[in-house]
Amino acid sequence: MLIHSASQLLTLAGGPQRGKALGSLGIIRDGAVLVRDEKIAAVGTTDELRRAYPDEPTLDAGRCVLMPGFVDPHTHLVWAGDRADEFEKKMAGTPYLDILAAGGGILSTVRATRTASLETLMAETRPRMLRMFRNGTTTAEAKTGYGLQTSTELRLLKALLALHDESPLDLVFTFLGAHAVPAEHKDNPQAYADEVVNAMLPTLKEWWQTHAPRHAPPFVDVFCETGAFTLEQSRQILTQAAALGFPLKIHADEFDNLGGAALAAELGAASADHLVVTSDADIQALAKSETVAVALPCTPFGLAEGRYTPAQKLLEADALLAVATDCNPGTSWNESMQFAIALACRYMKLTPAQAIAAATINAAHALRRADSIGSIEVGKQADMLILSVNNYQQVGYRYGTNLVRHIVKRGQIYSVDVGYYRTA
Amino acid sequence: MLIHSASQLLTLAGGPQRGKALGSLGIIRDGAVLVRDEKIAAVGTTDELRRAYPDEPTLDAGRCVLMPGFVDPHTHLVWAGDRADEFEKKMAGTPYLDILAAGGGILSTVRATRTASLETLMAETRPRMLRMFRNGTTTAEAKTGYGLQTSTELRLLKALLALHDESPLDLVFTFLGAHAVPAEHKDNPQAYADEVVNAMLPTLKEWWQTHAPRHAPPFVDVFCETGAFTLEQSRQILTQAAALGFPLKIHADEFDNLGGAALAAELGAASADHLVVTSDADIQALAKSETVAVALPCTPFGLAEGRYTPAQKLLEADALLAVATDCNPGTSWNESMQFAIALACRYMKLTPAQAIAAATINAAHALRRADSIGSIEVGKQADMLILSVNNYQQVGYRYGTNLVRHIVKRGQIYSVDVGYYRTA
Repeated sequence: MLIHSASQLLTLAGGPQRGKALGSLGIIRDGAVLVRDEKIAAVGTTDELRRAYPDEPTLDAGRCVLMPGFVDPHTHLVWAGDRADEFEKKMAGTPYLDILAAGGGILSTVRATRTASLETLMAETRPRMLRMFRNGTTTAEAKTGYGLQTSTELRLLKALLALHDESPLDLVFTFLGAHAVPAEHKDNPQAYADEVVNAMLPTLKEWWQTHAPRHAPPFVDVFCETGAFTLEQSRQILTQAAALGFPLKIHADEFDNLGGAALAAELGAASADHLVVTSDADIQALAKSETVAVALPCTPFGLAEGRYTPAQKLLEADALLAVATDCNPGTSWNESMQFAIALACRYMKLTPAQAIAAATINAAHALRRADSIGSIEVGKQADMLILSVNNYQQVGYRYGTNLVRHIVKRGQIYSVDVGYYRTA
Repeated sequence: MLIHSASQLLTLAGGPQRGKALGSLGIIRDGAVLVRDEKIAAVGTTDELRRAYPDEPTLDAGRCVLMPGFVDPHTHLVWAGDRADEFEKKMAGTPYLDILAAGGGILSTVRATRTASLETLMAETRPRMLRMFRNGTTTAEAKTGYGLQTSTELRLLKALLALHDESPLDLVFTFLGAHAVPAEHKDNPQAYADEVVNAMLPTLKEWWQTHAPRHAPPFVDVFCETGAFTLEQSRQILTQAAALGFPLKIHADEFDNLGGAALAAELGAASADHLVVTSDADIQALAKSETVAVALPCTPFGLAEGRYTPAQKLLEADALLAVATDCNPGTSWNESMQFAIALACRYMKLTPAQAIAAATINAAHALRRADSIGSIEVGKQADMLILSVNNYQQVGYRYGTNLVRHIVKRGQIYSVDVGYYRTA
């Protein structure tokens, strides 16, 4: 099939975009894409491709923007329940420590998740995936981490694997057993870190080979933060994960600068995520590595905090920058990468072009999938969006609603109804 | 028709909510509403209404929230073109004054709007109304103000009247000839203020009687701000408007505290809008009046500025507070009241309940329509929403996507498709 007459075809061609090179959209005006067998078979102008493939069935992009599907490289997609009551309390002025003392915070989601069945977990996660897909995310990373015990963590993976199979949205899996110290270990966090290293990770390896033999091994991630896991515990966990063949990610420097970003660079992690209070030295370490800095602007927004990832510093240092939603029930229940882009423009001072690159090709690199997704290039998976606007600058400039009109996923076209219908 | 089985029916009954009383949702659990002849005929529990009206056709709300439609009391709905290029320049670091010097800012929208035909204006505005309606706004105020000359200002009103007639979304009209000083009067702003007073307003009165005899007179609004209209010019314009029988609104204290809020209170304006830098004395003046303080949190968000309307001060002073989108092409192209609520919670520290009241019954009062819309009470227009969530606390807590599933407008049910469909 030939998709043609895009006002702007944003190819994002040429691989991940480092430092100040971020924002190269590779625009083809009046662009067209040939899709065959779920893949991109040719890219050019409408004239070129219509001449070369005169008998191909066509889809008219209607003078709109055609671009790669968004890749969301950091989500906590699967959980049970919500924390809406906690949000209301926070807005009414209850201090967060009081909410924690009353059993709120992440551990309340852990309690709800541990008691949820596989079916409940899948039923609660499906609408989130639907919102992601409708808003243009064609591949999303999805972490476990609300189990904090082997049985529940594996149930979360099982749910994610099944959801990946049933949905057009592709998931990339991450094991985050070290998301928080569970209540039963609160007096001895090291014992839980040891359990992750000595029991959970080896069990995960065996389980994955049995239950997900077709899939690459999941990422292993750790929350390196005051109150979660120390730098040394993070090192123990990630070193063991690497030894078992898992690729790595890390949550670093959201509230305190513990050195997690430099650890990620040292261990060759695919990404270091959050990076709000990262030191200049750690930024330099990241910039010298292939570790992608994943900014999560929805999190400070969700918390109504003023501090965002210092994107300009990262770009000046020549680091690789990506953007993600961090979709989760505590700080950021937002499924839309368009909104993450709107925030990245305003609070990280990215241009729309930079934010789009951070949300596509660089996000794909943060998942080590830049060879197959994140841009519109021959041989890549046909994952694309047709927006309802004719200029990429509208992305970020406009916010609060959904600018996606059609989603092309592995060559299949899905449409989002942008009207309404009379029911009765 | 009987709409039943709402997990929470938010009635917002009892009229506008002043000061600390803001946030009274009037929740009926397992609620139901009887709709007849476009109006609300009965309100109660599902049990009560099913017993009382056993033969009525039914619509099951599916254990979701049923609430009044959002009323958006401040939008600049009708314009031509966009300022996406300007947004990109701002994010890339170009100072706003340089953008203005290069012909950007509001006057670039004025140029595009003056040359746009009635048909073009309607065609460009329709998708915005569609986004508003899909996101739950059932009544929106709509201002002129990108004409700044009689002929264009009247063309904008003509477009709005026609759009109101063709759409299920009700519009409430506002004449904002005094939105900015047009380029041709830049050396003599007073001459333009005089033209508004002596020519435009009398012409408007006559034009309205001829072209919109069925409608109440439009509001007259003025942008009282440094660089726009002085307090004295604002007084001249609003006093003349009142003398001609127009109800009043004012843009006040967005950047500088000129005294516009106190003027609004003194003249009995329906609302004073923005109110970011309002003095304590002006807050007290507002609080003693029926003038609604309309906060526009999307504007500082859109501009990435840190200052929001001091909602807590307004509530402590016992003022009436409403929330609006301020949808416009320069600072805030967002059509969703849900997003305005998400901002109002985080940056004005409203609870979801307070923000919902500010976006419904109090917003209706800012349009002096609280007798017919803004709450679910017998005799009012049947303008309601069925959300896709079972608890009102989710509104504001979740953001970036649309939580509306069905819109009831004058008793007619419209549905928003929340899935996607395979096209080919």
